[in-house]
Amino acid sequence: MIAKKYKDMLGKKSVIREISEYGGQRAQEIGYENVFDFSLGNPSVPAPRIVDETIAKLALQGDSLAVHGYSPSLGLDSVREAIAYSLNNRFGMNYSKDHIFPTSGAAAALAHAVRAVTEPGDEVLTFAPHFSEYYPYINETGAVLKVVPANVENFQINFIAFEKMFNPKVNAILINSPNNPSGVVYSAETLTRLAEILLAKEKEYGHDIYIISDEPYREIIFDGKKTPYTSKFYANTISCYSFSKSLSLPGERIGYIAVNPACKDAALIVDMCGQISRGIGHNCPSSIIQLAVAEVLEQTSDLQVYEDNMHILYDALTEMGFSCVKPDGTFYMFPKSLEPDAVAFCNKAKEFDLLLVPGDGFGCPGHFRIAYCVPTEKVQRSLEAFRKLAVYYNK
Amino acid sequence: MIAKKYKDMLGKKSVIREISEYGGQRAQEIGYENVFDFSLGNPSVPAPRIVDETIAKLALQGDSLAVHGYSPSLGLDSVREAIAYSLNNRFGMNYSKDHIFPTSGAAAALAHAVRAVTEPGDEVLTFAPHFSEYYPYINETGAVLKVVPANVENFQINFIAFEKMFNPKVNAILINSPNNPSGVVYSAETLTRLAEILLAKEKEYGHDIYIISDEPYREIIFDGKKTPYTSKFYANTISCYSFSKSLSLPGERIGYIAVNPACKDAALIVDMCGQISRGIGHNCPSSIIQLAVAEVLEQTSDLQVYEDNMHILYDALTEMGFSCVKPDGTFYMFPKSLEPDAVAFCNKAKEFDLLLVPGDGFGCPGHFRIAYCVPTEKVQRSLEAFRKLAVYYNK
Repeated sequence: MIAKKYKDMLGKKSVIREISEYGGQRAQEIGYENVFDFSLGNPSVPAPRIVDETIAKLALQGDSLAVHGYSPSLGLDSVREAIAYSLNNRFGMNYSKDHIFPTSGAAAALAHAVRAVTEPGDEVLTFAPHFSEYYPYINETGAVLKVVPANVENFQINFIAFEKMFNPKVNAILINSPNNPSGVVYSAETLTRLAEILLAKEKEYGHDIYIISDEPYREIIFDGKKTPYTSKFYANTISCYSFSKSLSLPGERIGYIAVNPACKDAALIVDMCGQISRGIGHNCPSSIIQLAVAEVLEQTSDLQVYEDNMHILYDALTEMGFSCVKPDGTFYMFPKSLEPDAVAFCNKAKEFDLLLVPGDGFGCPGHFRIAYCVPTEKVQRSLEAFRKLAVYYNK
Repeated sequence: MIAKKYKDMLGKKSVIREISEYGGQRAQEIGYENVFDFSLGNPSVPAPRIVDETIAKLALQGDSLAVHGYSPSLGLDSVREAIAYSLNNRFGMNYSKDHIFPTSGAAAALAHAVRAVTEPGDEVLTFAPHFSEYYPYINETGAVLKVVPANVENFQINFIAFEKMFNPKVNAILINSPNNPSGVVYSAETLTRLAEILLAKEKEYGHDIYIISDEPYREIIFDGKKTPYTSKFYANTISCYSFSKSLSLPGERIGYIAVNPACKDAALIVDMCGQISRGIGHNCPSSIIQLAVAEVLEQTSDLQVYEDNMHILYDALTEMGFSCVKPDGTFYMFPKSLEPDAVAFCNKAKEFDLLLVPGDGFGCPGHFRIAYCVPTEKVQRSLEAFRKLAVYYNK
C-alpha cells in the first residue's frame, strides 16, 4: 500500500517547476535564446573560481579519511567554528560553534528549525508574499502554516492583519528578507516593531515565540544597502542560511542554522537538530562541501549582474506602465499583473514567450514574479516582449 | 516551546557514538595506538584515487552552472541512467532511470522508502540482529518498527518467530544483507523462503507487502562469495544503497533507491520520493558528488583489508574460546559475550582498552559487535588484549 499523502502531493507539484519545464520544451521548438524564461530562481553566474579550486585541493591533497569521513551528527567542528567566527565579525554577534548546525541548504535548515521549536498542531505565521515551498516544508513537520496577507504598498509587514491572526497556538514566525518573490528587505523599523509585538505576545501567552529567519538572499543586496540582521532585533531568532545563491551552489545543498546565543535553550536547539536529522535521514551535508565553503565564507559569486538586471527591468517596466515595488535585493521582482487574474496574465505572457510566475502561489494574487537571474543581454532582449504584452493590455 | 520529542531523544543518544567518544578521550590519555577502538563502522581505507580525481576534474573543468546547479527533484538524469545501467549489467535487472532515486546515503534511502510504502501506524518488521539506528529511521516516519528475534545459530532468518509476528498491519519487511552487525549474508534459500511467505501473506491480507533491502555492504564480501540480489527473489523490492562503505565516502552522503521494475507502482514510488524530499528538506545529494560517483560505479576502495582482518580475528577468537558465526562480508563480526550480560562484558573489555559494542542495541543481547575497519597491524596488536579478556573469564 503506497502512502496516500505523498501520492496526492504529486497532483500538487510546484507551479514554478511546471512553467520551467514548459520553458524547456518551448526552447526546443523555437531555440533557447528566444524563450524569456524568468521562472526559476537558479543562479546564472558561476561559483567563484576559488570554490572549485578549494574543492579540488581538498580532493587531491586532503587526507581521504578526513575529507570524506563521517561528519559528527552536528557537523564538522572546524566548519561550525569558521561559520560562527565569520558571522560574529560581520554582524557583531557572539556565536560559538555550539550555535551552528550545517544543513543541506535552507530547505533543510527550515525543516529542522520548525521541528525543533514546534509541536504538532502549533501554528507558524508567515507573511505574503512568501516562497511557495513553505507549505510542504512547514506542513510536513506537523506544524500548520498560516499566511498573513501582504502589505501590497511596500511589502513590509501588514501588522494589523498580523496581530489579528495571532493566537496562543502560534509558536514561530517565519520571515524571509531579502524576500522571495518581492526582493524587498525588511527595514529596521519593521523588525523593531515585529520584535516588540512578539515580546508582548510571549508575555501575554506565557510561552516562547521564535523567529525563524530565512536568509538565503542576505548577500544579494542593491545600491549599497545593508540587510538588517534579524538576530540583532530579537533574542529568540534562528537564522537559516544557504550558500546556494551567494556562492551559486544550489545543487550542493549546503547551508546552516545559526541559533542566536541569546535565544532560550540555544545550544539545546542545535543538539536537537542532530536528533531531528537521525529521523529524517539527513545526517549532515557533504563533508567535502562543508570543508570547502568554510574556507571561502567571505566570498561571493559576481553578484553585480542581478543589480544590473533589476535596474534595466525596473526602469523599463515602470516606464511601460507596470506598477512595482522596487527590489532592495535578491534576483526577483514582483509587479502587479495587468489584469486582476495573474494566472490569466501569465498565460497571456506565454504567447510572447515570456515565462512569468503568477503571484497566487506566493500568497499574493494580482502580482507576478520575475526571476531575473538570466544573462543581461537576454533581459535587454526581453523588453520588446514585455512592451508587446503591455500594449496588448493598454490597447 | 521547544519540541519535547527531540529533546527526549537527546537522552537516548547512540550507544555506539558514546563508546566512540570515550575512545577519543582515552586515546588522549594513553595514545591513539594503544586504544583498540572497534566501535564505529567508519571505513579505514581511503576512497579510490579515481574518485578524488573525478571530483577535481568536475570542479576545475566542468561547467559551473551544470556541476553545481539545482538537481531536478528526482536527481540528475545522467546519474540515474548510469546507476540503472550498472545495476542491470551486474544483476541482470532491467532498471531504467525512472526506477532510480539518488539519496543522501542509505539513511535517507530507508527513510524515503518507508515513507513511500507505509501509512502512519503500519508495522515494519526487521530481524535481529539489526542496525541500531533503524529505530529512529523507521519510527520517525510514523510507521512502527518491530523486531523478529534472532536465529542465533547462523543469523539467517528465524522464520517461526517471523510468521508468529506477522499481522495485517505489516506493510514492509526491512532486511540488511550483508548484515550489520553479524556480517552474515542471507542465503538464496533464506530469500526464497522469505519471498514465498510474503506472497502468501499478500494474498491472505489482500494488500501489497514490500521488502526494503538495505544493501550498503553489498560489495564487501569474503572468500569469493556473492551476495544474492534481493530483487531477483521478490518483485515488490526496494533496494537502498550507499557508497559510504564501497567507496569510503561516508561523509559525502551519497546513495540511492532502486525500485524493482516489477514492483507494483515502481515509477510512482520514485516520483513520490521526490515529494517526500520536499517535506523533509532533503532535496537531493550534492550535485558534484552525484556526478562523480556516476563516473566510477564499477570501482571500490581496496576492500581486501576487511577480509584479512576478519580472518585474523575469527581464527584467533575462536581459538581463544569465543563462539562466533563466521562473517560472509561487511567489516563486522558478532560473537557471543563471555558472560550473559553483554553490557557488563563490554565494560570489562574497556579495562583492556578494547572498545566493543554490546548486542543489546542490535536486538540481540548476549553478543557483542567488533567493527574491524581498522588497520591490520592494530587488529594484530589487539589480540593480546582479547586474550587477556578471555583469560579473565576462563580463569
